[in-house]
Amino acid sequence: MNEYLKTDPWKLVEERFDPLRVESSESLFALGNGVMGGRANFEEHYSGPSLQGNYIGAVYYPDKTRVGWWKNGYPEYFAKVLNAAFWIGVDVAIDGERLDLARVEVLDFYREMDMRRSVLTRRMRVRMAGGAEVAVEAVRFLSLERRELGVVRYAVTPLDRTAEIEFSPYIDADVRNTDANYDEKFWEEVATDGDVVRSRTKKSGFEAAWAQAVTLDGARFRCTTEPEKVRHTAVVRCEAGRTATLCKYAGICSSLNHAPDELADAARAVAADGLAAGFDALLREQEEAWARRWHGCDIVIEGDDEAQQGIRFCIFMLLQTYTGVDTRLNIGPKGFTGEKYGGVTYWDTEAYCLPFYLATAGAEVARELLVYRYDQLDKAIENAAKLGFRDGAALYPMVTINGEECHNEWEITFEEIHRNGAIAYAVFNYVRYTGDEEYLAECGLEVLLSIARFWAQRITWSEARGQYVMLGVTGPNEYENNVNNNWYTSYIACWCLRYAAEAAAWVRENRPADYARICAKRGFDEGAETARWQRIVEKMYLGEDRERGIFLQQDGYLDKEQVLVADLDPAERPINQKWSWDRILRSCFIKQADVLQGIYLFQEDFDLETIRRNFRFYEARTLHESSLSPCVHAILAAKIGDMEKAYELYLRTARLDLDDYNREVEEGCHVTSMAGSWLSVVEGFGGMRVKEGVLTFAPHLPEAWRSLAFKVNYRGRVLTVKCTREAVEVACEGEPVEVEIAGVRYCVDRELRVEN
Amino acid sequence: MNEYLKTDPWKLVEERFDPLRVESSESLFALGNGVMGGRANFEEHYSGPSLQGNYIGAVYYPDKTRVGWWKNGYPEYFAKVLNAAFWIGVDVAIDGERLDLARVEVLDFYREMDMRRSVLTRRMRVRMAGGAEVAVEAVRFLSLERRELGVVRYAVTPLDRTAEIEFSPYIDADVRNTDANYDEKFWEEVATDGDVVRSRTKKSGFEAAWAQAVTLDGARFRCTTEPEKVRHTAVVRCEAGRTATLCKYAGICSSLNHAPDELADAARAVAADGLAAGFDALLREQEEAWARRWHGCDIVIEGDDEAQQGIRFCIFMLLQTYTGVDTRLNIGPKGFTGEKYGGVTYWDTEAYCLPFYLATAGAEVARELLVYRYDQLDKAIENAAKLGFRDGAALYPMVTINGEECHNEWEITFEEIHRNGAIAYAVFNYVRYTGDEEYLAECGLEVLLSIARFWAQRITWSEARGQYVMLGVTGPNEYENNVNNNWYTSYIACWCLRYAAEAAAWVRENRPADYARICAKRGFDEGAETARWQRIVEKMYLGEDRERGIFLQQDGYLDKEQVLVADLDPAERPINQKWSWDRILRSCFIKQADVLQGIYLFQEDFDLETIRRNFRFYEARTLHESSLSPCVHAILAAKIGDMEKAYELYLRTARLDLDDYNREVEEGCHVTSMAGSWLSVVEGFGGMRVKEGVLTFAPHLPEAWRSLAFKVNYRGRVLTVKCTREAVEVACEGEPVEVEIAGVRYCVDRELRVEN
Repeated sequence: MNEYLKTDPWKLVEERFDPLRVESSESLFALGNGVMGGRANFEEHYSGPSLQGNYIGAVYYPDKTRVGWWKNGYPEYFAKVLNAAFWIGVDVAIDGERLDLARVEVLDFYREMDMRRSVLTRRMRVRMAGGAEVAVEAVRFLSLERRELGVVRYAVTPLDRTAEIEFSPYIDADVRNTDANYDEKFWEEVATDGDVVRSRTKKSGFEAAWAQAVTLDGARFRCTTEPEKVRHTAVVRCEAGRTATLCKYAGICSSLNHAPDELADAARAVAADGLAAGFDALLREQEEAWARRWHGCDIVIEGDDEAQQGIRFCIFMLLQTYTGVDTRLNIGPKGFTGEKYGGVTYWDTEAYCLPFYLATAGAEVARELLVYRYDQLDKAIENAAKLGFRDGAALYPMVTINGEECHNEWEITFEEIHRNGAIAYAVFNYVRYTGDEEYLAECGLEVLLSIARFWAQRITWSEARGQYVMLGVTGPNEYENNVNNNWYTSYIACWCLRYAAEAAAWVRENRPADYARICAKRGFDEGAETARWQRIVEKMYLGEDRERGIFLQQDGYLDKEQVLVADLDPAERPINQKWSWDRILRSCFIKQADVLQGIYLFQEDFDLETIRRNFRFYEARTLHESSLSPCVHAILAAKIGDMEKAYELYLRTARLDLDDYNREVEEGCHVTSMAGSWLSVVEGFGGMRVKEGVLTFAPHLPEAWRSLAFKVNYRGRVLTVKCTREAVEVACEGEPVEVEIAGVRYCVDRELRVEN
Repeated sequence: MNEYLKTDPWKLVEERFDPLRVESSESLFALGNGVMGGRANFEEHYSGPSLQGNYIGAVYYPDKTRVGWWKNGYPEYFAKVLNAAFWIGVDVAIDGERLDLARVEVLDFYREMDMRRSVLTRRMRVRMAGGAEVAVEAVRFLSLERRELGVVRYAVTPLDRTAEIEFSPYIDADVRNTDANYDEKFWEEVATDGDVVRSRTKKSGFEAAWAQAVTLDGARFRCTTEPEKVRHTAVVRCEAGRTATLCKYAGICSSLNHAPDELADAARAVAADGLAAGFDALLREQEEAWARRWHGCDIVIEGDDEAQQGIRFCIFMLLQTYTGVDTRLNIGPKGFTGEKYGGVTYWDTEAYCLPFYLATAGAEVARELLVYRYDQLDKAIENAAKLGFRDGAALYPMVTINGEECHNEWEITFEEIHRNGAIAYAVFNYVRYTGDEEYLAECGLEVLLSIARFWAQRITWSEARGQYVMLGVTGPNEYENNVNNNWYTSYIACWCLRYAAEAAAWVRENRPADYARICAKRGFDEGAETARWQRIVEKMYLGEDRERGIFLQQDGYLDKEQVLVADLDPAERPINQKWSWDRILRSCFIKQADVLQGIYLFQEDFDLETIRRNFRFYEARTLHESSLSPCVHAILAAKIGDMEKAYELYLRTARLDLDDYNREVEEGCHVTSMAGSWLSVVEGFGGMRVKEGVLTFAPHLPEAWRSLAFKVNYRGRVLTVKCTREAVEVACEGEPVEVEIAGVRYCVDRELRVEN
């Protein structure tokens, strides 16, 4: 447990200033409103180590891939969401001395993120080198209601003398990414004019404008500009005990939403409107907007304050990162909390995040995530064509921002193709949860059949075996490479072939006009194509070890020396830091759920004993060196009733960042894996599933918890499910709904209590 | 066939000036004397496209590896032999107009490389923009006798008027590599002083000095220096038809052979001694030295002028590249002809080049190549330790210059471990050919047992199979990656284990003092270690397909779609340019000899039918997209009597560069693969082998050839073997020797003729 952060159910709280923690706190206290976000950098100048980061979703730079020897088919670039202008800046000087926490004596320091309303507050008392003591309160938020507005209130109180305080709020667009393959700057200035900075990204040509409007107790500001920078400066004389309060309203607009020549005016207007509304009204607006966001997605854990704080932090970060207002946006592994992984889209979205948004934000928001992929279908077809696939086969990228592949390791790009399965599964998952089969006719089928075409070509016939095989893949366990017949990939591929055929039949029968449109657009010959899919499904090789009663992760897995994680010297872990890549590849150790990922997704296909045997075999060999791993194992452990294991695994995900297990949170938070933590709670301990259109629950409470209550959005209703040792209680807002609890079906009108 | 180069048995000849061929001719006409070399750049200024290149063997720069995502165990750098000072420079101006072939009218142009003596001559007649016609003759060589001396004679004859000719010979150390990972310059100046430039390589800290001494018909030179450059300038007035002749003697010394503070004097002395000896005497010295080099290694082919020129060119390039005078030197894939592959050492040396030097230069020269690896043994042990191997196991690098691994693709570095086998095999090959078993006691055994230790750890026990397996390797066929049980690697590994045990027994029995020294130094416990080696050899899994009667390249190879090269659209070739890497990996196509490489090395282990079945199966799937591939297939084709195939394959290697099949000779010549061409002739068509210490021949002449005669150096003698359709004739210089021809043994006193 992290002794540094205070445990609080609704807040992150830091109660002292530790220069060594500045960067990790910058990640943890990051703000986001779904379309932009940034790290919790200080507003005033700070000369100590800091990772400055402000990001505008989907504004990216294609950073040319850096490799030793080029291989055909390498992605040309890695797209990165850019570090954008530092809009929060407020330089402060007290009697001519610049306020800089690295250079003054910090007498008191308090920082909180109020997760209920997404407001960051910092209060501190410092002694300047010149001796003056001052108190500072800085409050900041990104408006959820006004997506292009950022607000700062910065108040300074001299405590022991009258002081001259200079406030110098500024916007600085002269910023760089730390992570740049060729040490390039990605932005270039378009114009700096009065209170607005305009910049353009190189190569990708996005434009953005930042404007500020400021007030300070009626003081007059002098406005100065230099390249890529605007600044307002005012000086006030302030008696001891009196407070000078600056309010800063920043308009942050990009060419995603405005014509380039209207950007400056748009940014100015956002800032001016903010100023007109005033800080207090904006703060109320923020509180109301966030209250609506939290409605339908809170989790309450009684008896475990750390778990409570941990899961709220996860939900909060996910809510800050994605709101479903724009199909061009998605969820980067670090959200808006850092540069790593470039803010681009991985299969994390479909495999982990989609169920969270489905159940907490509702069908419309989740649907935006699917449409993101639908919009990129033609790019996925191009991507497959680059690898030699034909006839409209689609391979979705491992990493993308605009539909083009941009991961830069060939062994991932080319071989970790199971992501295609996750994208098809997301369509299924969405339809299963929402009942919205229309989506198949509108968008889903095109995606499904294009993915099925890929599998039908990628799977090949082995004359030697008399079966279909899938050669040269990498499963979710990235501690293997170029293996044959990865069970998970083959299993999900077969499932895709079946589901695509079912979806085609449904659309043909139910939406003939859409069916005709799709057949024409995609050249789909259902009869011939589904017949081939069927043949593959029937004769697909899926590895199994009958003696052990387990599915085989890949050909030859049992040829490896079978060592267990329990036998591994803890000093050797994490092996991805301690071992050579070669040694990792040769070992039987598993990075993250692989066979078990498949069993998790297709639980209904396997009996409990099969799940138990596979779980025991693979869990003993799994290192969980991906943040996406323990959640899946936790859910399965709960399913087979191994609650001790489930809780142990859950603890590794839920406070991963808060407790900084991996000593890397300064790079950013593991946002997508937070969705996995949510899954562990709701699907693991709550045992929630959808079966035949009915929401079912099979709660298993960890020993340490008195109760678990979670809210889910289900087909237009908000359900609150509270599990205690004695009973399961379900409350329903909206139309009555059928639910299943521990195998029995009930209709919930408003409230239901089922004793255990 | 290349219509551009004239076919001549002893010369490369170019008879016109083609600006588009300048760079490819720079590669083909390159000079080398075994310790340094350079491309055939023009002495005078040339403003057209040109790849300047002068290289000093073993003077390298560790260029930091460039990758996208770092993996543990990646080599830190790729060592490159550097482009060093341009020592050949002679600026020439005619009546104030600079001579530059890109800007004058070239009336006549003739260039030849006389392979018999390694002298490059260029004659041309040009019309200057000012109208003056002049004739130029430039002769250049790198002295074989004086390893640090380069010589240029540059003669200018005004043809139609009296002209003022300015000669400005210079040395320019301000040079860069084209191939630099971070666009860095690798050299920095130490001092430029009078007639000497001194520079130091960054990071690696090699120093070198270049000095020039010049004469010009008694004219006086003015000496000027600028940073990293020295220059002498003289102007002569020359009547029409009279010739002004500059001689330039360059001393090129490095800290490999001199203390840094003595370098300038050393270079000056080399240049001054050259000048004192004079051009004509140096040229005679060169002719004599090269005559000695050619003695014992020429090949004469009657009836096929192109083949004749092709094979002489191969031998010539190999002789220019390595002479065995310094154990720090080795043979880079491009020799001294270009920057690509960094001039560093690959397994090419042991697998292809060693047999050439053994048979043409004698035991002492070949031994130097073995000692190079012996000297790097401790680095190979460190290299293995980085990958997690213990107890003195050695993994020789895939690419190295100083013993450290510096290849920058993990899938090669970590997995293409068969090179270790080639290095052990080279010891065996050397001892077999020379009979010098002493070498085992002196150096060989230490290398062998350290390699055996590696295999004994790298091979693991498969509980599932009840056999030993070798997982996660890449065989010589680099169109696969991370495969299990590559037959070639497993086979050579087992052979290493057996041979190391035999060598240990030989040293123990015959050289007890060395045995004791080695046991102590390497902590060798013969009993326990060889017992383990024996167990592995007995229970090693080696894949076989009994139905087809072939060895299996790797697990799962027959699961691939079995397509033949004959079925492949020629427009898709070479697949390494036309296909994505992924598609290549998944296909059954083979880049270069893999199973057949093993069958070639261990021919005596297999009957002719087995060889024939494997040859037919794998040749049909092999694309030969490595220059090292066709030679091995050619030898086996000859062995099984498929002469048409053998000749077809031979043609792909012998004139690869002369005819520029791959349109890339401008980057440099395929020097190491030239050794493969030699092997095709001598082992393929000559059928030469060593069996039980006896040299044996089984000639198979291609249809097109009237006769083939080759010289080999064998245990102190020079044998000339001439094969015609009627007979085999062997002449022996030195002690009588036993040979075997077509299965019958003969003693050759001076001459032998065996009718077919």
